[in-house]
Amino acid sequence: MAERRHITGFSNPTVKALRALREKKHRKLAGKFLAEGLRLLTDARECGHVPEVLVLADRRDPHPLLSALETAVEASGGEIIETTPDILAKITGKDNPQAVAGVFAEFDTSLAALDRSSADIWLVAQALRDPGNLGTMLRTGDAIGGGGLILIDDCADPFSVEAVRASMGAVFTQRIARAEWSDFESWLRSVPGQQGGQLVAASLRDAQPYRGAPYTAPCFVMVGNESRGLPEQYEMACDLRVTMPMKGRADSLNAAVAAAVLGYEVLAGLEG
Amino acid sequence: MAERRHITGFSNPTVKALRALREKKHRKLAGKFLAEGLRLLTDARECGHVPEVLVLADRRDPHPLLSALETAVEASGGEIIETTPDILAKITGKDNPQAVAGVFAEFDTSLAALDRSSADIWLVAQALRDPGNLGTMLRTGDAIGGGGLILIDDCADPFSVEAVRASMGAVFTQRIARAEWSDFESWLRSVPGQQGGQLVAASLRDAQPYRGAPYTAPCFVMVGNESRGLPEQYEMACDLRVTMPMKGRADSLNAAVAAAVLGYEVLAGLEG
Repeated sequence: MAERRHITGFSNPTVKALRALREKKHRKLAGKFLAEGLRLLTDARECGHVPEVLVLADRRDPHPLLSALETAVEASGGEIIETTPDILAKITGKDNPQAVAGVFAEFDTSLAALDRSSADIWLVAQALRDPGNLGTMLRTGDAIGGGGLILIDDCADPFSVEAVRASMGAVFTQRIARAEWSDFESWLRSVPGQQGGQLVAASLRDAQPYRGAPYTAPCFVMVGNESRGLPEQYEMACDLRVTMPMKGRADSLNAAVAAAVLGYEVLAGLEG
Repeated sequence: MAERRHITGFSNPTVKALRALREKKHRKLAGKFLAEGLRLLTDARECGHVPEVLVLADRRDPHPLLSALETAVEASGGEIIETTPDILAKITGKDNPQAVAGVFAEFDTSLAALDRSSADIWLVAQALRDPGNLGTMLRTGDAIGGGGLILIDDCADPFSVEAVRASMGAVFTQRIARAEWSDFESWLRSVPGQQGGQLVAASLRDAQPYRGAPYTAPCFVMVGNESRGLPEQYEMACDLRVTMPMKGRADSLNAAVAAAVLGYEVLAGLEG
């Protein structure tokens, strides 16, 4: 039977601990992250991810999906906290009295835990600083049937509230791995031949048109930092460099947009 | 000769007026907006947009592009304000002592001012609430050689600091128009036949695959609100409804991503 508590004080230590999960260092210390919203938590539940702690507004309308969440948390021995809409809004940072939030244990993000043969497309983000871009890449990865998102070097936190929100639940369907470049390169090349994977980058250097390029599965689609793009060394390590038309003044796309345009092209190429 | 002032007080009325441009109501009242950063202001200048007011840090390294900006503002009789890095950071909301900011007059955003024959692709955003998405759509529009972005119904402000920043300068290369749906529909259909334009929506209803669909120029690529998507009535008014593969749990893409994936496909279709 799950523990159920009612909290009404802003200074309650549990409320403070929940709010602290909005900050990276506290997430890291606790090994936990926050997700919010009925739809997102329902997606999580349907993917087998039940929150350790479920936080509900004490004045709420009944909803079958909310009841299903409570049942799942109770069955797994988690904790249910009821609190005021004000406190819930403080925890989630959203002004929504219907809100519900959950606390999840962070996933294993080691490369070793990732089975590259489980999907044809993987997205790779190098030093992306915007959590919204990471979340959007997770969402796109889900849409193109990707296996997950690999974060190279110093990226934003995929478990931040902004990234989780932008992922629209894909944080629960996509694998997430973090690695330094050298470790990623070793891992990628540790399986010889085509099964090891094709590393593809959007590039302006020595690149061929992205449209109809010879993509092969498993295909790793890599985009670089929002300001600096990919380091030249990383581009040169790619099996394929492709370029998207740039008809205007700009010489680059938003990183999440580039990943999506390229990812959909890879999907079409692999299926065609 | 341009007026040049040195301001060191946070409570100076000019500083207050500049900071106020971060808020929509003040932008609307003043008919002006803020853009920041040397690269963005240089893009603006090269597109013929010189700021009415240029704000510089008083302790700054010399830079030829900064000098070119000053010269352009002086030549057009604008105002140059030098201030402390702290005050500049307050105005731009960015902690960057190298920063420079400019105040521009908002553009004419009437549909009547838009020449549909000037480009093959136009992006249309319906009730988009995220200024970052609007800015990203402007940036994508520039990349695909689009003519501009048409905002239908109640959208976020394309002249907000967030949208201008995300546009990476495309706010100065793309036309921006705002209209109610009925006015947009009348305008679109006011030119009969193919010259009037093809309205295309990403849709789940009665749609054909987006890949290789029969796009014709001028093509208006429309995406809907982040949560609700397009109203059914709007989708039904489209000449073409197309659908992108959704291989995972999600049934939709980020709005700016959907516009980009579809926009690049339209570009390939029109060129191929």
